[in-house]
Amino acid sequence: MDFDQSPASRDMAARVRKFLHEHILPLESSLLNEPHHGNPDWHSWTVDPRIEALKAKAKAEGLWNLFLPAVGGLSNADYAPIAELTGLSLIAPEVFNCNAPDSGNMEVLWKYGSQVQKDEWLVPLLNGEIRSIFAMTEPEVASSDATNMRATIAEDGDHVILNGRKWWSTGLGHPNCKVAIFMGLSDPNAHKYLQHSMVLVPLDTAGVKIERMLPVFGAFDAPYGHGEISFTNVRVPKTSVIAGLGKGFEIAQGRLGPGRIHHCMRAIGAAERALKLMIERSMSRVAFGKPLVNLGGNRDIIANARIDIDMARLLVLKTAWLLDTVGAMGALSEVSQIKVAVPNMACRIIDQAMQMHGGMGLSNDTPLAAMYAYTRVLRIADGPDEVHRGVIAKLELKKYEK
Amino acid sequence: MDFDQSPASRDMAARVRKFLHEHILPLESSLLNEPHHGNPDWHSWTVDPRIEALKAKAKAEGLWNLFLPAVGGLSNADYAPIAELTGLSLIAPEVFNCNAPDSGNMEVLWKYGSQVQKDEWLVPLLNGEIRSIFAMTEPEVASSDATNMRATIAEDGDHVILNGRKWWSTGLGHPNCKVAIFMGLSDPNAHKYLQHSMVLVPLDTAGVKIERMLPVFGAFDAPYGHGEISFTNVRVPKTSVIAGLGKGFEIAQGRLGPGRIHHCMRAIGAAERALKLMIERSMSRVAFGKPLVNLGGNRDIIANARIDIDMARLLVLKTAWLLDTVGAMGALSEVSQIKVAVPNMACRIIDQAMQMHGGMGLSNDTPLAAMYAYTRVLRIADGPDEVHRGVIAKLELKKYEK
Amino acid sequence: MDFDQSPASRDMAARVRKFLHEHILPLESSLLNEPHHGNPDWHSWTVDPRIEALKAKAKAEGLWNLFLPAVGGLSNADYAPIAELTGLSLIAPEVFNCNAPDSGNMEVLWKYGSQVQKDEWLVPLLNGEIRSIFAMTEPEVASSDATNMRATIAEDGDHVILNGRKWWSTGLGHPNCKVAIFMGLSDPNAHKYLQHSMVLVPLDTAGVKIERMLPVFGAFDAPYGHGEISFTNVRVPKTSVIAGLGKGFEIAQGRLGPGRIHHCMRAIGAAERALKLMIERSMSRVAFGKPLVNLGGNRDIIANARIDIDMARLLVLKTAWLLDTVGAMGALSEVSQIKVAVPNMACRIIDQAMQMHGGMGLSNDTPLAAMYAYTRVLRIADGPDEVHRGVIAKLELKKYEK
Amino acid sequence: MDFDQSPASRDMAARVRKFLHEHILPLESSLLNEPHHGNPDWHSWTVDPRIEALKAKAKAEGLWNLFLPAVGGLSNADYAPIAELTGLSLIAPEVFNCNAPDSGNMEVLWKYGSQVQKDEWLVPLLNGEIRSIFAMTEPEVASSDATNMRATIAEDGDHVILNGRKWWSTGLGHPNCKVAIFMGLSDPNAHKYLQHSMVLVPLDTAGVKIERMLPVFGAFDAPYGHGEISFTNVRVPKTSVIAGLGKGFEIAQGRLGPGRIHHCMRAIGAAERALKLMIERSMSRVAFGKPLVNLGGNRDIIANARIDIDMARLLVLKTAWLLDTVGAMGALSEVSQIKVAVPNMACRIIDQAMQMHGGMGLSNDTPLAAMYAYTRVLRIADGPDEVHRGVIAKLELKKYEK
Repeated sequence: MDFDQSPASRDMAARVRKFLHEHILPLESSLLNEPHHGNPDWHSWTVDPRIEALKAKAKAEGLWNLFLPAVGGLSNADYAPIAELTGLSLIAPEVFNCNAPDSGNMEVLWKYGSQVQKDEWLVPLLNGEIRSIFAMTEPEVASSDATNMRATIAEDGDHVILNGRKWWSTGLGHPNCKVAIFMGLSDPNAHKYLQHSMVLVPLDTAGVKIERMLPVFGAFDAPYGHGEISFTNVRVPKTSVIAGLGKGFEIAQGRLGPGRIHHCMRAIGAAERALKLMIERSMSRVAFGKPLVNLGGNRDIIANARIDIDMARLLVLKTAWLLDTVGAMGALSEVSQIKVAVPNMACRIIDQAMQMHGGMGLSNDTPLAAMYAYTRVLRIADGPDEVHRGVIAKLELKKYEK
Repeated sequence: MDFDQSPASRDMAARVRKFLHEHILPLESSLLNEPHHGNPDWHSWTVDPRIEALKAKAKAEGLWNLFLPAVGGLSNADYAPIAELTGLSLIAPEVFNCNAPDSGNMEVLWKYGSQVQKDEWLVPLLNGEIRSIFAMTEPEVASSDATNMRATIAEDGDHVILNGRKWWSTGLGHPNCKVAIFMGLSDPNAHKYLQHSMVLVPLDTAGVKIERMLPVFGAFDAPYGHGEISFTNVRVPKTSVIAGLGKGFEIAQGRLGPGRIHHCMRAIGAAERALKLMIERSMSRVAFGKPLVNLGGNRDIIANARIDIDMARLLVLKTAWLLDTVGAMGALSEVSQIKVAVPNMACRIIDQAMQMHGGMGLSNDTPLAAMYAYTRVLRIADGPDEVHRGVIAKLELKKYEK
Repeated sequence: MDFDQSPASRDMAARVRKFLHEHILPLESSLLNEPHHGNPDWHSWTVDPRIEALKAKAKAEGLWNLFLPAVGGLSNADYAPIAELTGLSLIAPEVFNCNAPDSGNMEVLWKYGSQVQKDEWLVPLLNGEIRSIFAMTEPEVASSDATNMRATIAEDGDHVILNGRKWWSTGLGHPNCKVAIFMGLSDPNAHKYLQHSMVLVPLDTAGVKIERMLPVFGAFDAPYGHGEISFTNVRVPKTSVIAGLGKGFEIAQGRLGPGRIHHCMRAIGAAERALKLMIERSMSRVAFGKPLVNLGGNRDIIANARIDIDMARLLVLKTAWLLDTVGAMGALSEVSQIKVAVPNMACRIIDQAMQMHGGMGLSNDTPLAAMYAYTRVLRIADGPDEVHRGVIAKLELKKYEK
Repeated sequence: MDFDQSPASRDMAARVRKFLHEHILPLESSLLNEPHHGNPDWHSWTVDPRIEALKAKAKAEGLWNLFLPAVGGLSNADYAPIAELTGLSLIAPEVFNCNAPDSGNMEVLWKYGSQVQKDEWLVPLLNGEIRSIFAMTEPEVASSDATNMRATIAEDGDHVILNGRKWWSTGLGHPNCKVAIFMGLSDPNAHKYLQHSMVLVPLDTAGVKIERMLPVFGAFDAPYGHGEISFTNVRVPKTSVIAGLGKGFEIAQGRLGPGRIHHCMRAIGAAERALKLMIERSMSRVAFGKPLVNLGGNRDIIANARIDIDMARLLVLKTAWLLDTVGAMGALSEVSQIKVAVPNMACRIIDQAMQMHGGMGLSNDTPLAAMYAYTRVLRIADGPDEVHRGVIAKLELKKYEK
């Protein structure tokens, strides 16, 4: 195991850090308390010109699409410290064009897309001109078990007809969101790894309907959010199928590995931000004649946070190194391990940071509450803790089977 | 210790339960997903006629103001099971006119108010015609340490002049909110228990300004919410002072005991609701060919929830019994004990119930996310966990001092 | 629910407490560090005359057999505070003749024994002249699942022939241990609740062999301990069968309810003792210029211990009250609840008390290490946590079945 | 960070693993249940010829003194996987002559000893012919705060006179234990880092008295154990002082870094052993018709154990790498981090493994109970958790000081 950052990664990380402190964090603090942020009516959500300006600036400085090895030139291990930096702020991932689910969708198109698909959708995504959703999770069934999926993809000559209802489609509310990668059953009688397909669907296709946006703890996270969307007899040409019918499961597997690790890298950053805010608060806030840091178990909380973050980061780095060296199939247990360990750790530390701030910690006067909500989602998205623990245990038990 | 419910309490509880199931729960499920619930612009918040209709109905049936012993005829121990029932729904407390902070404010006025004060403010509060705030917590200082308070009350002839900034004033955004109980320093040089006073301030008095409403996890909980409010040279007649200058600390102590126990009783109800939802979900939702209840550690979660709720309820009942039999000063440790134990327990169980629901659990499709936010606030409001643990330890150590 | 102690119980508790402080605790502190306590060679274990002297004294004062309602005149609820007091010291239960497993065995004989059985075994047990074991758990199978039991009881004319191997027979190593209640399968084809029987077996019967004593964390707890014992073609008259063949399951159910609650009551006492030692240590021990109680999170530990003990005690009292008012079948969930909650709570607090004592806490210079070992056993004995959680969940789910 | 094992380390690890499985584990299983293991009378403890035979064999194969870089040629990072292997068995460290406290004492003599001291004590220690103690901790004071130390070292011409009482001197009961490294105050008025000295004291010197051996959870761990020892006017030549008067603190700092990391490496091994035993048990033991691994939350326990062990190991590797690359002063926080994280993790997993074994898990039929006791000691030895958390927090806060 070699966790050393390459010089290119170190250099990039330094530039990302500088950009973050100079441009992103100052904007973040004002954004959170602006009224539009909490606007539940997604029809009126708008693109924020200040974010667009930062995107342009980041792009101009080459701090752009770093998540994609073929573009940014960084291995997973090299990207990890940069992804962690982007996790320090809720808006940083978008500014650097490496936010979920677009980054995962771009990876899918990069690896599996036809040239036509790339020209039509990958290019504007890479340019940050449009946004996209990944329409996999369904409201009626437990999506943690992929065999439950009910959405269908029926062949009809040169076209396919899509039907189904999806939810928790992240980013659906954004005005620039133009396309969905829709996953459904194209052949329920095939081998279980060959039943699904993925199809590119422009959101303005007839039969596509945004049903509603879903709040998390009551907040809609405008203009991104998570949405519920229905597909009723949606007809698109077969050329919209990604990599051919029956390839859905394979693509999903490939997509989720890096997707999960990127989530975890960013969650490490969120935990570091929480620890920083916790410490600054505990040193400055006075009660009973002492700074909080000298009261009760607060130093224990700080010490445990440092330990837990450092252990979690090392496990993420190990997983990244495995992805780089032996590939996703050699890191199945590790990907599930970080998916369990990191969001739980981050939720715990963010919660403690909120508590250290008193009521302020629950408001939008710090990014903590929004970070908590975001990180809490991660304990469910891309497979809940329970499913990942099951995977880890299964792989562990396998070592003992004869 | 005798925790038996009186026949009057049993009867009342049965009627409250019936009302809750017939009228409140059906309304709650629709309310949570209506757009106005998440509207961050408090200026446009409105009174919900469906809530008002239920209030009228509850009042007509005598299910009204039960929290107030002198009105409802119930001891703390007798009120406990009823308060727990009201905690099963987020909107139930208001329907029965026993919601915070109005219930606490009514108690203050009942016990300490002059006849004029009662006529002007207590009567409409008891009627559910107006709402009120309790303006104690301040943004600049750690309010967990009362000696930090900075708001001032200066005598000026027949008047007092108020200055200060308060936040986390619950219910400030409601259109019917008309009056504040303002707490401030009236004599910083007096004995530390005689420095503070409480003053009734109509919200339309010159110099009173609602600065903003504060979100919790990004949600504003319209039309109630928590607000930030400033008082700048606010001039009110001395007759607005409650029980005389210097009585603030005494009143606060008396207010917070029952206030905390009411919060805890309701949080027990919230935990019971979460357990119910968790079980129903785990029995109906299928993954990997089995209902969730037969997967992994889910039965352990259910069992532990039952144990933890039952233990917490017993401690709340004991505390109520102590309040009834030996008074607040004889229950100092117990009030702090439940203030620590119950919200933490409820947060944990609600969080597990959310997890059992997958993404749905974080949305407003169940009341769980809103309940989590509400209960999470309780770990800070009326004294954070840390301060209450300090009180408990101090009282415990006292037993060993010679 | 009425948890008030009767005057008789209060009076008895006061006398038990006095006896404990005057006679038992002083002896305990010397006993733990005496060499014979740790002697692993059970053949050389001896009866301690100091214990016997205290037994005689307790008996003379009427502080004797209080666990048995028919003898001591105390309900379960009334016995609870007394049992808790006996849990303050590891040797107290024996001194008051209410130690496991003899107390449970005496209950069995009191309720189910024939007159001959009572004369032969109950009388000397009630007198504290002999000791007994309850031979139920078997090494080869998971005893948490009663249907696994392999020991057999075969009819042979006027006799029964016993075969089987048992372990974790508590108290087997004591020189005064004279009789076993042996449980085995008498009719494997009967209904599952009628397959088992219990038989009284003098330990000097041919075919009975003490195989070895079992250490807990390496310590043998002389002269009591837990033993492994084999029964090979052991022939005893049918009059030794308790309550007739096929009654084993029924008797076991009746025995385990009170047995478990007694364990839990004593574990509450152990936790109280640990909290007391923790506080005394934390007030007297100085590090970095301060008593430990003013360092780090130690006050939080004390506060949480107080909360947790008080909640657990209330649940035990409720369970005792249920046993008294509706019987064991009406308290199935509660008995399992305390069996999970109390030993876990006590282990946690004792562990924290050990930690507060540094190295001393792990030695025998305090009773904490022995108490930890004893309490840790309780998480397995009479059904492991896991099985009891399963029972609780099952009963909880039943409420939702139609 | 580069955690790759060198080829030399890989090769050595393979040989250690083979030796462990072929020779050590078979012996271990019989040793634990032999009567002498639990013998509390240390005067009769004997050297086990089977252990000595394995030591000779290991030495002959070059699997000897690997902990010492200058001898074994392994860096800390390279030694880590080997130390972990030795932690798989309680007796392995001695067999490979790398057990505490001898390994630490050998390091001290290697780095700071005079040639005479090396010839007299280091050589036989390196040969495994004698054993030694490190006499630092004192019963009367909190040793976690070094400034509390009371033992004295007075100059008297060419000699020094030692007085003091020490306890938790590991290995004191072994018949081959011949020498103590005694730490005491030689100049209480000097700078606080120059007050202490270390002196080599043969245990047969006049005035040295073994007061008693200390049990852990009641067990004496013959023939090693932890002892209490007094030094009364013990006179030794000044040539016995290690590295000169006043060097005690410096040596202690140097000794404790690697000492702590070795403890942690071995504790990782203990946790791995516990996980292995837990899995094997859970796959083979049947209850309610299923192997335990398919019951309740047992797979979650296994998954969490895998995650926690892997994270802890990575943190230990990072710490080893820091020790190798920037030295002990550059790894202060990390050494404290692993000292907190690893023993707590190992205790938790071993406890869960015990629980999975039922009663058997608490006995000596598996090594789990002894491993638990050993690992529980580590939460106190070489600085309790609380002190290490304090160090971590202090270093963390320092980053924010201006």
